[in-house]
Amino acid sequence: MKKYLIFSLAIAGTLATEFAFRSKPAQVVVNATDSDSTVIKKIFDETLENGKAYNDLWFLCKKVPKRLSGSVGAEKAVDYTYGLMKEMGLDSVWLQECMVPHWERGAAEEAEMMIGKSSEKTRINICALGGSVGTIGNGLTAEVIEVNNFDQLTELGKKKIEGKIVLFNHPFDEKFVCTFNAYGEAVTYRWAGPHLAETYGAVGVLVRSMTNSLDTFPHTGVMRVDSLKALIPSAAISTIDAEKISALLQKGSTVSVHMKMNCQWFADAKSHNVIGEIRGSEHPEQVIVFGGHLDAWDTGEGAHDDGAGCMQGIELLRIYKALKIKPKNTIRCVLWMNEENGGRGAAAYFEYAKSKNIKHIAAIESDAGGFSPRGFSLDMKGEAKTKIRSWVPLFFAYGVYDFTRDGGGADIGPLKELGTPLLGLTPDSQRYFDYHHTEIDVYENVNRRELHLGAGAMAGLVYMIDKYGL
Amino acid sequence: MKKYLIFSLAIAGTLATEFAFRSKPAQVVVNATDSDSTVIKKIFDETLENGKAYNDLWFLCKKVPKRLSGSVGAEKAVDYTYGLMKEMGLDSVWLQECMVPHWERGAAEEAEMMIGKSSEKTRINICALGGSVGTIGNGLTAEVIEVNNFDQLTELGKKKIEGKIVLFNHPFDEKFVCTFNAYGEAVTYRWAGPHLAETYGAVGVLVRSMTNSLDTFPHTGVMRVDSLKALIPSAAISTIDAEKISALLQKGSTVSVHMKMNCQWFADAKSHNVIGEIRGSEHPEQVIVFGGHLDAWDTGEGAHDDGAGCMQGIELLRIYKALKIKPKNTIRCVLWMNEENGGRGAAAYFEYAKSKNIKHIAAIESDAGGFSPRGFSLDMKGEAKTKIRSWVPLFFAYGVYDFTRDGGGADIGPLKELGTPLLGLTPDSQRYFDYHHTEIDVYENVNRRELHLGAGAMAGLVYMIDKYGL
Repeated sequence: MKKYLIFSLAIAGTLATEFAFRSKPAQVVVNATDSDSTVIKKIFDETLENGKAYNDLWFLCKKVPKRLSGSVGAEKAVDYTYGLMKEMGLDSVWLQECMVPHWERGAAEEAEMMIGKSSEKTRINICALGGSVGTIGNGLTAEVIEVNNFDQLTELGKKKIEGKIVLFNHPFDEKFVCTFNAYGEAVTYRWAGPHLAETYGAVGVLVRSMTNSLDTFPHTGVMRVDSLKALIPSAAISTIDAEKISALLQKGSTVSVHMKMNCQWFADAKSHNVIGEIRGSEHPEQVIVFGGHLDAWDTGEGAHDDGAGCMQGIELLRIYKALKIKPKNTIRCVLWMNEENGGRGAAAYFEYAKSKNIKHIAAIESDAGGFSPRGFSLDMKGEAKTKIRSWVPLFFAYGVYDFTRDGGGADIGPLKELGTPLLGLTPDSQRYFDYHHTEIDVYENVNRRELHLGAGAMAGLVYMIDKYGL
Repeated sequence: MKKYLIFSLAIAGTLATEFAFRSKPAQVVVNATDSDSTVIKKIFDETLENGKAYNDLWFLCKKVPKRLSGSVGAEKAVDYTYGLMKEMGLDSVWLQECMVPHWERGAAEEAEMMIGKSSEKTRINICALGGSVGTIGNGLTAEVIEVNNFDQLTELGKKKIEGKIVLFNHPFDEKFVCTFNAYGEAVTYRWAGPHLAETYGAVGVLVRSMTNSLDTFPHTGVMRVDSLKALIPSAAISTIDAEKISALLQKGSTVSVHMKMNCQWFADAKSHNVIGEIRGSEHPEQVIVFGGHLDAWDTGEGAHDDGAGCMQGIELLRIYKALKIKPKNTIRCVLWMNEENGGRGAAAYFEYAKSKNIKHIAAIESDAGGFSPRGFSLDMKGEAKTKIRSWVPLFFAYGVYDFTRDGGGADIGPLKELGTPLLGLTPDSQRYFDYHHTEIDVYENVNRRELHLGAGAMAGLVYMIDKYGL
């Protein structure tokens, strides 16, 4: 049954691009006399019935799955999305240049563990942390020492750590309802751990994967600058492997790991943000910007992170075109490059906005997965928050009700310096870290309707902000 | 990679039952002085950190996946869940007898389609509708005629329909945000279609599967009494196959289908509701009842429908025990038998409640999948609704905010006659019909945290109802 299931899913994925649900009998458009709630209903109807984001995501995931900055895949993704927006009849589609870091995982990435003096070797799944050095020669073999936090690392000190592989085994705190809060607390071990371990003489680092899930997938991710400079190889291991090793160590066994990775750095490469827009009818010089990031970790297909956000941004423009909504201000979709390991696309967009003195009315980022939208986080003045919160009744029926959180997003973050109100789409977070930065962040794990509801939420909010300002 | 993925998921499923997340350092219990919000936080913390529903669901899905009423699987499920509750130290665990209908799908279920006079045959996936008769001899072969609704059926009339297989091809209306509304509108073709088609002389019925998804899985389900009496075989086909056949017919091709099913009816069988409770400290004679249904269609594992609801009910009792909450009234989990094709368990419980004159303070059903909870539907007097809605601020932080919908559930429905306030857990509905009544309603498609959040929402609400009444 399992084989058949996979086969069927593959067929469904392919056919989804060929068969479309019945087209609407009559063209629905937004009229000048429509109430706000009517417009918002038309927006959601349009994306639920005719949304293209899901099909477009299929192409992005299946045709250009490996989109880490500097890679061939990333440039193909630039070409694909540029072409996609070019076909939409937008007022302007352009590329914004940026130089991006270029690190590659390499072909070999493997590890095995040995217990005590036994010659038996058990495979464990590893995944180099983004930016790690590779191993030398035939790989690294060393005893593993486990810590749950930095205090334990300090306590053990150089004497006990020197020559060993440090396992940072800090599980997600399950009590956080929003899984991003658990991530925020645990990710410091991936972020800062490699550098700190090196200062104590460690020869390698293994980090328990950043996930709520107990599974066999290692989750990659970027490290802090000092950890990027570390000369010891750092990798993620799955939560199940971390639990296994921990259980063995707690029973008093000695555990050694042999790891081999041939990842390496290359010179910075030229890349681009991809930008498409509909010009404002009254204030073309004022911009509402939104979108996601086009680069993705090389492990999976970057479906939720952040193919979803990119396709929602493009879908927002498509909804405007389909419903013939004429924005007063320019509405602009940016697919940022290099969010995962550098933020160079965000920096380039910021420099452009600053140097040209462009007024951004708002910036909305979708980078938390293509799951059912729940609301938006807000990073802006109190008055603007109050205004947005007064719109909750318009969005409630679509499951979008929570505007209580703070924050915007990594790619729009720099715009705060220019006084831009920032908003982040906040979808249901329960499943996000099941897939995040792994080989299972694939198209099959995205639900069409959840993805399109997110696009509808963004489009509805852009409509309101364009009409009433912030 | 795909093979490996499946393998890994299988391991994860198994190991999840062996490894547990780190246990809490100190036992948290509810104190008499705790505020309501503190208690509700403790409830959610407990289930998010130590929830057992997900592991228990693994056993139910993997060890007793085929649980259609009257089957060996259903009786095994009764035994398993009875044993599970017996081990929990509850005040009472018992079985409540009911006679259930017994229909079996049989081993053979296959179909192929032929276009025009071509001898080429293309396999299509079918799935007998629950209660259908089988085909005779070597199966049924006939031309397919498509209708989108009953008006078209009437219009075509006996002359055009006689001797043919009617394809009811009514897609879900994608505009409904809550997918249950789309289901409610489309399911009439599965429910009443076979009977009506037979009255026009059809020799068989194919129904487009009840789902938002464009995929290859046929979705089974029950029929209305008159359709159950129909003497023509009725089956579901996948949405992709329905689209394919429809496209061919619209191009003017003749499409024939050969179908073979050896499903059949047996004599009613003895079965049981499984019931476990914690007795009330002040009013043991008054009951708050909650749970889901234990029977499930035989196509998959009944993971979302409704293993999830059953395990959430049991988890609610576990949370009470773990936190040492002493309810004033009796809190009772019922795992109803035969929701899918008869409602005999619900009827038996109702008869018992009525004949013993048992006051039910409230009844809560979870039968909409183990997805992230969004709120509860309410079927009760206005005053009681107002009271429950005043509790929204206590639940908002857990993503439970929507108490605007009407309705209870199929298994608690009969209790309305006794004046019982009814509540239905309403999880996010976007993915429900991707899996509903198919071979992919399996454990792997349930997320641990989403399932446990639903149990937390139910437990929190039971706590409030027990404390303040309705």
